[in-house]
Amino acid sequence: MSKILRINTREKTYSFETPAEDIAGLGGRALTSKMILNEVPATSHPLSKYSKLIFAPGLLSGSPAANSGRLSVGGKSPLTGGIKESNSGGLVSQKLARLGIKALVLEDKPEDDRFSMVVIKKDRVEFLAADEYVGVCNSDMITKLWDRFGKRVATASIGVAGEQRLTSASIQFADPKGHPGRAAGRGGLGAVMGSKKIKAIVVDDKGTDRVPLHDPDAFKAANKKWVELLTSHPVSGQGLPAYGTAILVNVINEAGALPTKNFRTGRFENAQDISGETMAANIEKRSGVATEGCHPGCVIKCSQVYNDKDNNYLTSGFEYETIWAFGAHCLIKELDDIAMLDRLCDDLGLDTIETGVTMGIAMEGGIIPWGDGKAAIELLKKVGTGDPMGKIIGNGAAFTGQALGIDRVPVVKRQALPAYDPRAVKAVGVTYATTPMGADHTAGYGVCQNILGVGGSIDPLKKDNNVAISKTLQIATAAIDAAGLCLFVAFPVLDNPEGLQMIVDMINARYGLSLVVDDVTTLGISILRDELEFNRRAGFTPKDDRLPDMFKEPFAPHNTTWDFTDEELAEAVKF
Amino acid sequence: MSKILRINTREKTYSFETPAEDIAGLGGRALTSKMILNEVPATSHPLSKYSKLIFAPGLLSGSPAANSGRLSVGGKSPLTGGIKESNSGGLVSQKLARLGIKALVLEDKPEDDRFSMVVIKKDRVEFLAADEYVGVCNSDMITKLWDRFGKRVATASIGVAGEQRLTSASIQFADPKGHPGRAAGRGGLGAVMGSKKIKAIVVDDKGTDRVPLHDPDAFKAANKKWVELLTSHPVSGQGLPAYGTAILVNVINEAGALPTKNFRTGRFENAQDISGETMAANIEKRSGVATEGCHPGCVIKCSQVYNDKDNNYLTSGFEYETIWAFGAHCLIKELDDIAMLDRLCDDLGLDTIETGVTMGIAMEGGIIPWGDGKAAIELLKKVGTGDPMGKIIGNGAAFTGQALGIDRVPVVKRQALPAYDPRAVKAVGVTYATTPMGADHTAGYGVCQNILGVGGSIDPLKKDNNVAISKTLQIATAAIDAAGLCLFVAFPVLDNPEGLQMIVDMINARYGLSLVVDDVTTLGISILRDELEFNRRAGFTPKDDRLPDMFKEPFAPHNTTWDFTDEELAEAVKF
Repeated sequence: MSKILRINTREKTYSFETPAEDIAGLGGRALTSKMILNEVPATSHPLSKYSKLIFAPGLLSGSPAANSGRLSVGGKSPLTGGIKESNSGGLVSQKLARLGIKALVLEDKPEDDRFSMVVIKKDRVEFLAADEYVGVCNSDMITKLWDRFGKRVATASIGVAGEQRLTSASIQFADPKGHPGRAAGRGGLGAVMGSKKIKAIVVDDKGTDRVPLHDPDAFKAANKKWVELLTSHPVSGQGLPAYGTAILVNVINEAGALPTKNFRTGRFENAQDISGETMAANIEKRSGVATEGCHPGCVIKCSQVYNDKDNNYLTSGFEYETIWAFGAHCLIKELDDIAMLDRLCDDLGLDTIETGVTMGIAMEGGIIPWGDGKAAIELLKKVGTGDPMGKIIGNGAAFTGQALGIDRVPVVKRQALPAYDPRAVKAVGVTYATTPMGADHTAGYGVCQNILGVGGSIDPLKKDNNVAISKTLQIATAAIDAAGLCLFVAFPVLDNPEGLQMIVDMINARYGLSLVVDDVTTLGISILRDELEFNRRAGFTPKDDRLPDMFKEPFAPHNTTWDFTDEELAEAVKF
Repeated sequence: MSKILRINTREKTYSFETPAEDIAGLGGRALTSKMILNEVPATSHPLSKYSKLIFAPGLLSGSPAANSGRLSVGGKSPLTGGIKESNSGGLVSQKLARLGIKALVLEDKPEDDRFSMVVIKKDRVEFLAADEYVGVCNSDMITKLWDRFGKRVATASIGVAGEQRLTSASIQFADPKGHPGRAAGRGGLGAVMGSKKIKAIVVDDKGTDRVPLHDPDAFKAANKKWVELLTSHPVSGQGLPAYGTAILVNVINEAGALPTKNFRTGRFENAQDISGETMAANIEKRSGVATEGCHPGCVIKCSQVYNDKDNNYLTSGFEYETIWAFGAHCLIKELDDIAMLDRLCDDLGLDTIETGVTMGIAMEGGIIPWGDGKAAIELLKKVGTGDPMGKIIGNGAAFTGQALGIDRVPVVKRQALPAYDPRAVKAVGVTYATTPMGADHTAGYGVCQNILGVGGSIDPLKKDNNVAISKTLQIATAAIDAAGLCLFVAFPVLDNPEGLQMIVDMINARYGLSLVVDDVTTLGISILRDELEFNRRAGFTPKDDRLPDMFKEPFAPHNTTWDFTDEELAEAVKF
């Protein structure tokens, strides 16, 4: 049976532990959220010795199941003050699973200021001094780690933002090509890792066997159907591979839901300049990579390598939300500037959504002009230099709003809203308001039914059914995150009910269980209940499940407002 | 009957209004808290157009009652996010009362960036452009206003901190000599005034009569006894006039309760250097003013003028808490450096407690060395210059802690703890934890019974009776604030039950009422209930009524810890 690996960052010791009964059957987000609820005092400071940081592969991670290599990183968020599960691709999840590690838990914190790194191998765990790596950016860090430990190891590292415990700090993961384009971005968990003075984690699964499958034939049969399902759906099989998530720029702009100039209107006149189509054309012209997976076994391959005009690497994992945050939100129309901002975030170790929204707040406050990509690049480069403006920017939108005395700041639970206006995509607005994660589109992606016509169709401009669909999606997402599956499997699964059965079949074949589809819903609900309970203990109330007053303004072109009542939103957190 | 003066800061209009029945009998903090509860949506942003800022004289303000010239300033705090009453001396309270203005309410906010000032006269209210005053420090501001409007006017103004809407910003009031040493300091209400683009308020009572007294003889008789009571008590009649509040440096140090180096120990080896006795000796040597009142009619006179070595004005209203915050907390032992820091706070318009505690956090984060007064002065001068470090410092301790990634930050409800360690003065610790104001010693000054032996004696190191005494004091304080009386009247009143009767007699004689002493308690409870209700609506929970984890550490020399249970603290907010 898989073990819990506990690492005491103060004592530099580790221990393996058989999981207690209540967590033995859990993986991914189900496991991180349950352990955080059980083990972290909800009112403790997220950067204190009482705080913990947990990395957990999903239930299917490490198996041959397509798109099952996602990792859950859990903790108390220094950004929101609530529970956080931040989900990433990369190689760590599968390698931890192969090492038989169900969860890696960083505990306590050192009393001195010296950084270490943790190297996890089949037969031992090592603590190595990391002083020489302090200040090293994530892309160089991966290069150095691969040079030192070989190119087969998985890495998780923090940049200067995490070292300085800035609350937008991410944890970045090497993708299969060794680019730091994969991130546990949201919620500032990089600052928690920084507070524990862990610069990097290296996971080396050399010498391990494949993960055991209880019924290999049944697994193989289910996975075959699963791959067919994923590759035959128009979104996961065609749209995402062709244009990445940036396909949404034109889609959401057309829908009048692309928040522009700090959520003032829903259409950006330069949307075409920053669209997925433009990105794809540039990639082709510049010898980039149009489509690749964020982890081995991915059949959707929405990632890419985006080169500059001279065909040199600029960034990878160049997502719609990043392009929106620095683009339409800030009125920046030069895609290459946005790509540079994305790259800087990856290297400094910052969440791109939080940082992009923050950049718009800096523009709102007159620090740099609206639409000035070059100025944004220079401003972002201040992070980690010791310049106090870097400390402000690196602490996110709510913080920067307070620094500049601005009351127009789009956050829920102090986390910045992503790339879909809640007045024009109301199901996702309900998710922003009510998920225990703080404003987060991935927690219940109502864009499916509101805009994409996936899983049915619900009017995005009216309230009707949008609370219900957000809840359904929040439950399904929590379960997907527990399985270690990529969220984008939801597109085909929403359109084909047999998809859920395939997931259950794979889990059953992997572990020798006899789960049924209803158990998926039960699991999702149970995860959300744990997370809501943690937040309740931390002092959150229904008042925190609200959008700020700025969303009372009518939003062009549809001129809808955010009009959910307290009672309707209260319904959205009843699980 | 007195009126409400409402000022719309966007439209630049004003109106007088007869108070509604539920507020007609209220004054001071009772009035500001009730109106904020009634009129400001609790979840609105404190710097938004939905926010209001209310100035209210107490029930006895403007009358000849000794020490009755205190002003309540109320709003939603941008520092804590909760309700705030910040109380100050100066001249505004008495002049508003003489003008028959029960409350002055600043509403809405301008859409442009131009500052105005409001001039209130007997027959009209004027809006004047204040562009020329932007960036002017509070002492120069008072000089300019007195030059322009005469030395009889009262002033309230903000410095650059308020203009920039920093959340430690104060509102400063001219004292009778024209120094800006009086402040509505705590909770950042200067930022609210700044958000409404009001640089200053001038109150000119020329041409008004004395406030009417329903029964002049009865009033005179009660006030005579009242003056005798105040002047005959050892604290209000001798200690405070002789040494100001700084008399407490040695007292609290001796008690082992002087928080030193960010609340690490209770004794400061250089306490004598920063003591009230040293201050008094310097004042005498340097031709300062040893004792003066913060408003006409004060018979306690705890204020002073503190000159530099060359006998030039350095600061005034040089309080114990300020000396502690920049002194023992930061390990600064040069009293003149601390006086300069106090002066800078008055001029920039910053709360000295919040800013002093913040300075210690900057030292904790390595920005400047511990104990370096000159470096602290230079750091403080950055506020308002545009230097982003000034924006960090000016936003207080919790904010600076986040900027620097520090988890050892002494705040409750994001407001910095004042000058009495909660582990060694447990009654004031209960007040810090539970008052709706955020950590605030004035809200229930348990130092009386814990240390000074005023109003009885309760062991400061044990829990016994300290919840009960904090509650009693919170009730009494709220009522005193509603009357417009100086908090220091509590010393004699706690030791002589007839004091309360004298207050009631004066209120009755002023208004023709027939209140009894029990009505004082009823009023105090009613104020606290209003404030707790606002905070509840704003999303506060019992989790916010707690001290941070750092107070679990044993505190030398007594090695006590903060050990109240959740249940005990829950009791403290039951009114």
